[in-house]
Amino acid sequence: MTYCVGVKLGEGLIFASDSRTHAGVDNYAKFCKMTVFEQPGERVLVLLSSGGLAATQTVINVLRQRATAEPHHLWSVPSMFDVAVLVSDAMRDIERRDGPFLEAGGLKFNASFILGGQIAGEDMRLFRLYAEGNFIEAGVETNFLQTGEAKYGKPILDLAVSSTATMEDATKCVLVSFDSTMLSNLSVGMPIDLLCYARDSLEVTMKRRFDEGDAYFEALTQQWLKGTRRVFQELPPLEW
Amino acid sequence: MTYCVGVKLGEGLIFASDSRTHAGVDNYAKFCKMTVFEQPGERVLVLLSSGGLAATQTVINVLRQRATAEPHHLWSVPSMFDVAVLVSDAMRDIERRDGPFLEAGGLKFNASFILGGQIAGEDMRLFRLYAEGNFIEAGVETNFLQTGEAKYGKPILDLAVSSTATMEDATKCVLVSFDSTMLSNLSVGMPIDLLCYARDSLEVTMKRRFDEGDAYFEALTQQWLKGTRRVFQELPPLEW
Repeated sequence: MTYCVGVKLGEGLIFASDSRTHAGVDNYAKFCKMTVFEQPGERVLVLLSSGGLAATQTVINVLRQRATAEPHHLWSVPSMFDVAVLVSDAMRDIERRDGPFLEAGGLKFNASFILGGQIAGEDMRLFRLYAEGNFIEAGVETNFLQTGEAKYGKPILDLAVSSTATMEDATKCVLVSFDSTMLSNLSVGMPIDLLCYARDSLEVTMKRRFDEGDAYFEALTQQWLKGTRRVFQELPPLEW
Repeated sequence: MTYCVGVKLGEGLIFASDSRTHAGVDNYAKFCKMTVFEQPGERVLVLLSSGGLAATQTVINVLRQRATAEPHHLWSVPSMFDVAVLVSDAMRDIERRDGPFLEAGGLKFNASFILGGQIAGEDMRLFRLYAEGNFIEAGVETNFLQTGEAKYGKPILDLAVSSTATMEDATKCVLVSFDSTMLSNLSVGMPIDLLCYARDSLEVTMKRRFDEGDAYFEALTQQWLKGTRRVFQELPPLEW
């Protein structure tokens, strides 16, 4: 499994992904699921991957190769929508190539992405690409998109990640959402990769990896635990 | 979908269930999913149902009818384990009867239960019966059992429903867990039926239904929202 979150705020975008991949509980590994394409001052594109690792890695390799061989590629197209179409095309091409072989082995081609960022001349945007290559874009009412094991962490995001939240509060909330998910699903695991993009900056200045035992992450999640227990105690008791 | 929770604490047991049933978004209804069998001073049995309504209602009808016709029934057997076996037997009998017809229509027999309570001479116990009729019993490390749409509400239960929690705190937590689930899944809906059983009381004294707009439920969930937002603001900010 995987857990990835992309958030769109007034101040900027937040991206976070876990790093666990597995083929059964006896075969798991760590892989970074966050890929950044950056040309400072011109564009910042962030892709968060979920699904089969062979599929998602190949999509990203194809995107990189096409950037040197084709006229329209992720460094040249003028909008984030065009980037989403390029990712979608790459996904469908790989599915055409690998799909029948996977099906012969009783498997299914499975790759999906969260894509966000900004290209000079356009506002920042955030998309979710489904396994079929179609995609949706985040809006004001639904300003965060999740992939993978999304349910455990969603109520926490609902609490504090509205469009008007500050980057600071929403970042804490995203990290707590990862903690909740990891406590309930062993197939989501550290390290967590976090990237906060400041609107119109057109460069990556805030990127950080949280490894097992990270002091900030531990302090954050412990304080969340203590704080919410206090909230429960202060809630009005039910009178019978 | 459905959401049911059973909790086992030092002080007693908590049961809660939603009331929404549906066959598609254009066909939904309210049905109580909590069934209580009580003989004050002798036994209290509580069943929470999830799965197809035709299946779960028939299982409960069969349990009631067998109580008047067979030597071993839910009013006579000496242990909660025996009650779990009776429920399991009824589930399998109905599946034998209905299963092939459902399969002919492309459906699957689907019923599962949370069962808890106490019989005089034994401590209180809490079980979860799977659709196949096999079952597990809650213990000290895992003292709550959920059925249906379990993921959205689980991190909240993990926060405040340990074996040593008070009935008062755990009850508030169970209700907040329902609120989180209903916000994320439209197929879980009010009214919520709640029953708190005090250890060794052998009678039901705390049973309550929370309807849409219930003043206590509204106050509780609003205060939870405000309280957790405050906790988020007080969490240490991430330094870059």
